Amino acid sequence: MKLATIRTANEVRWGSPRPKAGGGTAAVRLDGDRAVEVGAPDVATLLRRPDWRTAAAAADGPAHDAAALDLAPVVTTPAKIFCVGHNYRTHIAEMGREMPSHPALFAKFANCLLGARDDIVHPGETEELDWEAELGFVIGSRLPRRATSQEAAAAIAGYTVVNDISMRDWQWRTPQWLQGKAWEASTPAGPWLVTGDEIDDAADLEIRLEVEGEVMQRSRTSDLLFTPADIAAYLSTFTTLEPGDLVLTGTPGGVGAARDPKVFLKPGQVVRTVVEGIGECVNTVVEDKP
Amino acid sequence: MKLATIRTANEVRWGSPRPKAGGGTAAVRLDGDRAVEVGAPDVATLLRRPDWRTAAAAADGPAHDAAALDLAPVVTTPAKIFCVGHNYRTHIAEMGREMPSHPALFAKFANCLLGARDDIVHPGETEELDWEAELGFVIGSRLPRRATSQEAAAAIAGYTVVNDISMRDWQWRTPQWLQGKAWEASTPAGPWLVTGDEIDDAADLEIRLEVEGEVMQRSRTSDLLFTPADIAAYLSTFTTLEPGDLVLTGTPGGVGAARDPKVFLKPGQVVRTVVEGIGECVNTVVEDKP
Repeated sequence: MKLATIRTANEVRWGSPRPKAGGGTAAVRLDGDRAVEVGAPDVATLLRRPDWRTAAAAADGPAHDAAALDLAPVVTTPAKIFCVGHNYRTHIAEMGREMPSHPALFAKFANCLLGARDDIVHPGETEELDWEAELGFVIGSRLPRRATSQEAAAAIAGYTVVNDISMRDWQWRTPQWLQGKAWEASTPAGPWLVTGDEIDDAADLEIRLEVEGEVMQRSRTSDLLFTPADIAAYLSTFTTLEPGDLVLTGTPGGVGAARDPKVFLKPGQVVRTVVEGIGECVNTVVEDKP
Repeated sequence: MKLATIRTANEVRWGSPRPKAGGGTAAVRLDGDRAVEVGAPDVATLLRRPDWRTAAAAADGPAHDAAALDLAPVVTTPAKIFCVGHNYRTHIAEMGREMPSHPALFAKFANCLLGARDDIVHPGETEELDWEAELGFVIGSRLPRRATSQEAAAAIAGYTVVNDISMRDWQWRTPQWLQGKAWEASTPAGPWLVTGDEIDDAADLEIRLEVEGEVMQRSRTSDLLFTPADIAAYLSTFTTLEPGDLVLTGTPGGVGAARDPKVFLKPGQVVRTVVEGIGECVNTVVEDKP
């Protein structure tokens, strides 16, 4: 099953620059060329229903043309967003680091997210707007503290595609990365959630990022040091994971800051983030007009 | 005006170990020995009303004995919690660091917070449970992107007391501190919000932390490198601050990990975190019983 969150209150269109203030959203189930509303304002809210699987499968709400959706972030109301750094062996190597014994974790907030076709605003305050293709996953049932990897795997609702856009100059201003990672409306997440019954936790999927059609990152999720279930179990040591919580699993080699010479995103460029079997985010970088 | 969030659904009592599942909460105004409900489930929700100042001042809901309140975290529904590291000159010096040009920022989530009289659970997974007395502030009106310090000051609803409990062994496992800072129900925040009309932004208030009556941290908020308004304005460069958002402004010298020999919290100890003119959190460390 594929689930998405769409914007509904205004005219449905592609390329909305960012979530519209006051705009309505709705969770939908993708049925081929149709998107059927399932009775929740976003996928995270849907996942808070214990019967979300059967409810979403059976829902028969208003239908939309799947080719003309205005996609919101796949979840718009996650209570927590955890991100993993240094999780693909190739990326760890290119950054000149040793293989870590524990995942490096940082946070984002719900207002960081962008829809899968939204424009990425290039803030005037950064010279180093960089990309990070990532496999994301969303929690579908409460995962209590100190869960096993098996329990964690069972709590994952499904998988999505995220571009963990990073302002490198801000990320490295201080020892903590947050201020380079938590820009409002910066992080494409979508286009949809593919439920876990369609994807193995330790799947061997190609993950790829292109800038203007040029492949900048290409790896496979089998290169992940910590799998989604490993990460969720580790997080559960210190916090309860709740339905709708989003986790970004880290990026493979090939980010702009690790290239020689370094390469960063410029207004006008199109960034395509693809995870095989899940979907793609396609976003145009636009100039900031405060 | 002093505003707090109290637990109401179950018997009112001191020392609730952590927020009760399904327990109700209510925002109250402190009037001497009475706490009057103001018609919102928590202070953050109250602050989302544009007329919160007049509504809270005029409210005349059910009243409680102020000496017998079961205090919840001062806000239970903040959308964002930002924390500053390295912000007191004495603490920067004791950590052997240079004075930073930008605030080091990290995050917590709403479920990290504890009430001002709640027990601090000592997780079995850490050997290094440490304290950090902090001045906190809460946003009271939307602060748009790229605000000035003056605009930021006007958006601050008020101030509170926070103990940024840190699991140092987890904090330093990886380059990112989050996993030592984001333990569920670990961070006392309260007892109340003192509105900004009673406290200057650059106030010169004593901040103090005692363990079993022994003073471990003692400084003044005049030692802050970045004031609350500076921090809020800096945050607004990259994100809109919303009513209810909580910011921790950093801790002065004297944390356990910086002592020689190092000192960490043990079950049975009582930790008292005081900011002059605002209030105090008094929390007992208890053994973890998963």
